[in-house]
Amino acid sequence: MTDTADTFVLDPALRAMLMEASSATVSIQLLKRGLRFAAIGGVRPLNPLACRFVGPAYTLRFIPAREDLATPASIAQGDNPQRVAIEAIPPDAVLVIDAQRETRAGTLGDILVARLIARGVAGVVSDGAMRDIGELEKMPLPIFCNGVAAPPSFNFLLPVDIGRPIGCGGAAVFPGDIVVADSGGVVVIPRHLAAEVARDSVEQERLEVFIRRRVDRGHATPGLYPANDETRAAYQRWVAAGRPDEV
Amino acid sequence: MTDTADTFVLDPALRAMLMEASSATVSIQLLKRGLRFAAIGGVRPLNPLACRFVGPAYTLRFIPAREDLATPASIAQGDNPQRVAIEAIPPDAVLVIDAQRETRAGTLGDILVARLIARGVAGVVSDGAMRDIGELEKMPLPIFCNGVAAPPSFNFLLPVDIGRPIGCGGAAVFPGDIVVADSGGVVVIPRHLAAEVARDSVEQERLEVFIRRRVDRGHATPGLYPANDETRAAYQRWVAAGRPDEV
Amino acid sequence: MTDTADTFVLDPALRAMLMEASSATVSIQLLKRGLRFAAIGGVRPLNPLACRFVGPAYTLRFIPAREDLATPASIAQGDNPQRVAIEAIPPDAVLVIDAQRETRAGTLGDILVARLIARGVAGVVSDGAMRDIGELEKMPLPIFCNGVAAPPSFNFLLPVDIGRPIGCGGAAVFPGDIVVADSGGVVVIPRHLAAEVARDSVEQERLEVFIRRRVDRGHATPGLYPANDETRAAYQRWVAAGRPDEV
Amino acid sequence: MTDTADTFVLDPALRAMLMEASSATVSIQLLKRGLRFAAIGGVRPLNPLACRFVGPAYTLRFIPAREDLATPASIAQGDNPQRVAIEAIPPDAVLVIDAQRETRAGTLGDILVARLIARGVAGVVSDGAMRDIGELEKMPLPIFCNGVAAPPSFNFLLPVDIGRPIGCGGAAVFPGDIVVADSGGVVVIPRHLAAEVARDSVEQERLEVFIRRRVDRGHATPGLYPANDETRAAYQRWVAAGRPDEV
Amino acid sequence: MTDTADTFVLDPALRAMLMEASSATVSIQLLKRGLRFAAIGGVRPLNPLACRFVGPAYTLRFIPAREDLATPASIAQGDNPQRVAIEAIPPDAVLVIDAQRETRAGTLGDILVARLIARGVAGVVSDGAMRDIGELEKMPLPIFCNGVAAPPSFNFLLPVDIGRPIGCGGAAVFPGDIVVADSGGVVVIPRHLAAEVARDSVEQERLEVFIRRRVDRGHATPGLYPANDETRAAYQRWVAAGRPDEV
Amino acid sequence: MTDTADTFVLDPALRAMLMEASSATVSIQLLKRGLRFAAIGGVRPLNPLACRFVGPAYTLRFIPAREDLATPASIAQGDNPQRVAIEAIPPDAVLVIDAQRETRAGTLGDILVARLIARGVAGVVSDGAMRDIGELEKMPLPIFCNGVAAPPSFNFLLPVDIGRPIGCGGAAVFPGDIVVADSGGVVVIPRHLAAEVARDSVEQERLEVFIRRRVDRGHATPGLYPANDETRAAYQRWVAAGRPDEV
Repeated sequence: MTDTADTFVLDPALRAMLMEASSATVSIQLLKRGLRFAAIGGVRPLNPLACRFVGPAYTLRFIPAREDLATPASIAQGDNPQRVAIEAIPPDAVLVIDAQRETRAGTLGDILVARLIARGVAGVVSDGAMRDIGELEKMPLPIFCNGVAAPPSFNFLLPVDIGRPIGCGGAAVFPGDIVVADSGGVVVIPRHLAAEVARDSVEQERLEVFIRRRVDRGHATPGLYPANDETRAAYQRWVAAGRPDEV
Repeated sequence: MTDTADTFVLDPALRAMLMEASSATVSIQLLKRGLRFAAIGGVRPLNPLACRFVGPAYTLRFIPAREDLATPASIAQGDNPQRVAIEAIPPDAVLVIDAQRETRAGTLGDILVARLIARGVAGVVSDGAMRDIGELEKMPLPIFCNGVAAPPSFNFLLPVDIGRPIGCGGAAVFPGDIVVADSGGVVVIPRHLAAEVARDSVEQERLEVFIRRRVDRGHATPGLYPANDETRAAYQRWVAAGRPDEV
Repeated sequence: MTDTADTFVLDPALRAMLMEASSATVSIQLLKRGLRFAAIGGVRPLNPLACRFVGPAYTLRFIPAREDLATPASIAQGDNPQRVAIEAIPPDAVLVIDAQRETRAGTLGDILVARLIARGVAGVVSDGAMRDIGELEKMPLPIFCNGVAAPPSFNFLLPVDIGRPIGCGGAAVFPGDIVVADSGGVVVIPRHLAAEVARDSVEQERLEVFIRRRVDRGHATPGLYPANDETRAAYQRWVAAGRPDEV
Repeated sequence: MTDTADTFVLDPALRAMLMEASSATVSIQLLKRGLRFAAIGGVRPLNPLACRFVGPAYTLRFIPAREDLATPASIAQGDNPQRVAIEAIPPDAVLVIDAQRETRAGTLGDILVARLIARGVAGVVSDGAMRDIGELEKMPLPIFCNGVAAPPSFNFLLPVDIGRPIGCGGAAVFPGDIVVADSGGVVVIPRHLAAEVARDSVEQERLEVFIRRRVDRGHATPGLYPANDETRAAYQRWVAAGRPDEV
Repeated sequence: MTDTADTFVLDPALRAMLMEASSATVSIQLLKRGLRFAAIGGVRPLNPLACRFVGPAYTLRFIPAREDLATPASIAQGDNPQRVAIEAIPPDAVLVIDAQRETRAGTLGDILVARLIARGVAGVVSDGAMRDIGELEKMPLPIFCNGVAAPPSFNFLLPVDIGRPIGCGGAAVFPGDIVVADSGGVVVIPRHLAAEVARDSVEQERLEVFIRRRVDRGHATPGLYPANDETRAAYQRWVAAGRPDEV
Repeated sequence: MTDTADTFVLDPALRAMLMEASSATVSIQLLKRGLRFAAIGGVRPLNPLACRFVGPAYTLRFIPAREDLATPASIAQGDNPQRVAIEAIPPDAVLVIDAQRETRAGTLGDILVARLIARGVAGVVSDGAMRDIGELEKMPLPIFCNGVAAPPSFNFLLPVDIGRPIGCGGAAVFPGDIVVADSGGVVVIPRHLAAEVARDSVEQERLEVFIRRRVDRGHATPGLYPANDETRAAYQRWVAAGRPDEV
C-alpha cells in the first residue's frame, strides 16, 4: 500500500480510452472480473452537465469529530490532513474523501474547491456533503457528493489521514486506483486492472452503439442484446464497413 | 389474480379523465375510500418536464442476486424475466418494477429503455435505480426511480417474476392496477375503483381551480378550502356561468 | 417560551445584514459559540434559484396520524392547527414545520402555499414532504423540504401545535429564532444571538471575499485560509483601500 | 386536548379487563375500528419478565438539544419539563416519552426511575434510550425503550412539553389515552374507545384460548381460525359448559 | 423453478451432516464457491437456546397491505396464501417468509405457530416481526425474525405467493434451498450445492476443533489459523490418532 | 498520533478508579468538558453479566471488501492487519474495531477471541458484528458489538490499518484513549483527560449513591437531584460520618 512516485501517474492513452467508457460499461467489465462492490454509492454530481472525469485516486479520511480537536483553530494547524491534502494532491488526480457518509457537515467549500481548481485536480468524490453549493455549482470542477450542508467539516468530522485505503460510499478505494465518473455514477478500477478494463470497455461501448442503433430501428432484443453469434458477426461487418449509420 | 386478455386494456375515456387528475388529487380520492398506502414512495422522475402518464401496471419482480444465477450470461437466456418483460409488456402499459428498493444497481439502461419506447409503453416506475442516466434523461419515456447506479441489475438483483402482485416503494401493485404519475408523485388505483376515482378526481380538480383562483385573489382559507356550503354554491354558479376568469 | 408581541418582529437592519451572510458563514459563527446542532438537516430548496430568505420562525408541529382524527373532514374544523397556522403566521415570518421527517405525505400543497404568498410570509421549511410540486416550483415562495409526496398531510400526519418549540431536521427551533436560508442550507440562530452573529457573519463574508480572490489568483491556502496575522493585515489594507479588484 | 381532573383516572374494572388482554389482541380490535397506527414501534421491554401494565398516558416531549440550553445546569431549573414530569405524573399513569427516536442519549436513569417507583407510576415507554441499564433491569418498574445509552438526555435532547399530544414510535399518543403493554409490544387505545375495545378484547382472548387448545389437539386451521359459524357454536357450547379442559 | 415432488425432501444423511456444521462454517464454504450473499440478515432467534435446524425452504411472500384486501375478513378466505402455507408446508421443511423487512406487523402469532408445530415443520425464518412473543418464546419451534410487533400481518402486509423465489433479509431463497440455522445466524445453501457444502463443512468443523484447542493451549495464530502445511500435517496425525484431547 | 511505548500503559490506580465509575457517569464528566460525542453508539454486550472493563484502545480499521483482496487466502498472509492485531495487541488493552457499522459479516469468531483471551486483552468493541455467537457468549472476554453474522469478515470487509485513529459507532477513537464499558454502554475518554475524569467520576458516583438512597426513602428530586447547596452539605456530613446506611 505504499505510495511510490508513480502512484498518481495515469498514462494519457489509458485516460483517453477510459474517457470514452461510461461508468455503466466499466461496471460490467469489473463484474465480469468478479468485482461487484466497485461503485461508489449515494453520490450525485453537483453539476450533471460537467461531471465527466477519469483519474487516479488521492485519498482523505475523516472520522467523527471530537470537540477538543475539531475546532475552528484546528484548520490553521499546518498538519491538518484536510489542508495538507488540498496542497499536496497531484494535478490530474481525483480527491476521494471518506466522510463516513456524514451528511450534516460539508467536507469542502468554495474556497478550497477554488484552490483545487488552481492546482489542476481532475475531480472530487466525497461520500459526505458539500458547502457553499450555490458557488460550487457554478465552478468548473466536477464534484460528486452525498448531500449539501451549511456547517463546516469540523462541525461533525475530523480529518486524520491522507494516502491510506478508504471506504467511500461502500467501495474500497486505494491510492492510485482509477476513478471513472460520469452522470451515471462513479466506479473505481483497481490499479492493476485498469489497462484491460479500459480496452474491453471501449470495445463494449462500440458494440453497444451498434445494438442501440438496431433497437432504435425496431429490432427486438432477443439475440441482439446481449449479442448472439449472428449479431456479433453483423457487428464485425459493421465495424469492417467503417461503422456506417446503417445498422 | 389471473391476468385475462383485458388486464392491460384501459378505456381511452377513462385514461383521458385521469390525465386531467394530478397524483395529489387521486391520493385524496383514494384516502376518502380508506386507502392510505397507495402512493409509491421514494421515486422521482428522471425528467420532471416529461413525467406525466396514466396506464395499467405490468409488473416485474426482482429478488437479491445469487452470484451463480445473476451473471452476465444469465441475461442471454430466453426465459430471463427482465428480458421477457421488455418484449411482452403491452403498448400503453406501465412497467412497474419491484427492485426491493435496492439502489446500488440499475434496473434498466438506455438500450432496454430504447426498446420500451419502440414497443410503445406509457412509462416506467422502479423502486430501484436506473443506469445510463445521462442517456435516459434525454429519451422521451417517462421514468420514475429511486436513484442512479452504474452497475447492471444483475450486480445485486435477480429477476424472478412477471405478472405477479408486487410491492413497489411501499405500495401494493397488482397487474392491471391503474398507475397515475406526474411531477408530484406516483399513485396506484386498484382496478375496480378506477372509474369512480377518475370521475371524482376530475370534479375535485375543477373545484380546486376555483378555490385556487379565489386564494390568488386574496380570499382567506376558512370556509373556502375545504369548501363550505356557501363556497360550493358559489362554485356551482361559477360552473354554470362557464367558469369565467372572475371568481 | 411565551410568545410576546415582539416574537416575530425582526429589525430590518438585522435582516439586511443576515441577507448578506450565507448559511455556511452563519454556521461557522454559531460553531464558534458552541452550537453544532443549528442546521436543519435533509432539506433542499424546491427552487434553488429562489431560495434565499431570512426571518423569524413560526412553528407548526405534526404527530403521526390517528385515523379517526386525521380525516378529510378534520381540515374543515376551525381549530385545525395547520389551517390556523396558515391564517395566523405574521408577514415576513418563516413557517417551520416539524413533520417528524415523514416523507410519505405532503405537509403543504399549492393552495395553502398560494395563501402563504398572499399573506406575505418569507419562506417555508418542513422536514417532511411537499405536494403539487410541479405547481410549487413555479411559485415565488422559497420552500425547503425533505421530499415530494402525492398524499395530503392527514394521510400520515396530524397537526397538534402552533407556537411551541419543535425539532426540525435535527435542529431545535423556538418561535422567534432567526432562520437563515440559501442554496447551501438552512440554519437557525437563537434569538438572543442574532445581532452578534449577524455582525460577525458580515465581517467573515467580507474576509472570505478577499481570500477567495487571492485563491483565484493562485495563492496557496496556508496562512491565507484561515488567515494568519499577515493575511489579516493585508485584508485590512484592502478594506481601507476600498476593496479594489486587486488583492 | 385540555387535561381535566379525570384525564389520568382509569376505572379499575376497565383496567382489570385490559390486564387480561394482550397487546396483540388489542391491536386486532383497533384494526377492526380502522386504526392501523396504534402500536408504538421499535420499543422493547428492559425486563421481559416484568413488563405488563395498563394505564393512562402522561406525556413528555423532547426536541433536539441546543447546547446553550441543554446543559448540566439546566436540570436544576425548577421548570425543566423532564423534572417537572417526574414529580407531577399521577400514580398509576404511564410516562410516555417522545424522544424523537434519538438513541444516543438516555431519557431516564436509575435515580429518576427510582423516584417514579416511589411515586407509583404504572410504567414507562420511551422511543429513545435508557441509561444505567444494569440498575434499571433490576428495578420493578416496567420500562419499554428503543436502546441503551450512557450519555444523559441533555447530551442530545431538550425537554420542552408535558401534557401535549406526542408521537412515540410512530404512534400518536394523547394525554389520557390508555396504554397496554406486554412482552408482545405496546399499543395505545384512544380514550373514547377504551371501554369497547376492552370488552371485545376479553371476548376475543377467550375465543382464542378455545382455538389454541383445538390446534394443540391437532385441528387444522381452516374454519377454526378464524372461526366459522360451526366453530363459534362449539365455542359457545364450551363456554356454556364452563370452559372445560376438553375442547 | 417448478416444484417437483422432491423439492422438499432432504436426504437424512445430508441433514445429519449439516446439523454438525455451524452457520459460520457453511458461510465460509459458500464464500469459497463465490457466494457472498447467502446469509439472511437482521434476523435473531426468539429462543437462542433452541434455534438449531436444517431443512428445505418453503416460501411465503408478502407485499405491502392494501386496505380493501388486507382485512380481518381476508384471513377467512380459503385461498389466503398465509393460511394455505400453514396447512401445505411439508413436515421437516422450513417456512421462509419474505415480509419485506416490515417490522410493524407480526407475520405469525401463537396459534399459527402451534399449528406449524403440529404439522412437524423444522423452523421458521421471517425478515419481518412476530406476534405473541411471550407465548412463542415458550414454544419448541425454532423461529428467527427481525422484531416483535403487536399488530397482525394484515395490518401492514398482504400475502400473495407461496412456492416462488423470494428475498429474505437480503438473501435469495428458492423453494427447496437448504436452510441452516443456529445461534450464529441463518444461511441458505443453493440446492445443487448442498451435498458438497455439507461434506466440506464437516471437514472444516473438525479442523477448527483442532485449531481451537491449540489456541486454547496458547499457540499463536500465524500458521495455525488458517492452517499452513505443517499444521495440516499435525491435524492429519491428530485425526489418525483418533482425535485425542491432546493437540 | 504516533504510538510510543507508553501509549497502551494504563496506571493501575487510574484503572481502579475508573472501574468504580459507570459509563453513564463518565459521560456526564465528558459532557461537562464539552465532549458530547464520546459514546460508542449501537453496540451491546454479548454477555451483559460480564461486560465491565477499562483499558487503553488498540485500533483496527476495516474498509469495504474488494473481492480480489478479501479472499479466504488473504487471511493467511503475514501482513493481514486483522491477524497482526490479534498477535500484537498488548495485554490489558481494548481492541476497538472500525467495521464501518457493517453488520452482515462478523469481525471476529471464536478462534480469534480465544487467542485474545490467551493474550490477556481487556475487552473488544466493534461497531460491526460477531460470528460464532453461541461460543462467544460462553467465553469470558467482554465483547461489545452491533449484531451477529454468520459470514466471516472478509465476506464484506477488508482490514487495512492498525494503530490509526478510527471512528467506532460514531465516536472518534485514538490509540491509547481510555475505553470504559459496562452494561450501560461504552465511552471513550481522551487520554489527556483520563485522570481528571476518573477523579470527578468517582466523586460523582459517591454523591449519586447518597441521592439514590434518599430517593429510595421517598425524597422528592427538586433540590436533591441535581443537588443544591443544602443537599451537598448533607452529603458532606454523610461522607464525614462514614457513609452510614441512614441518609
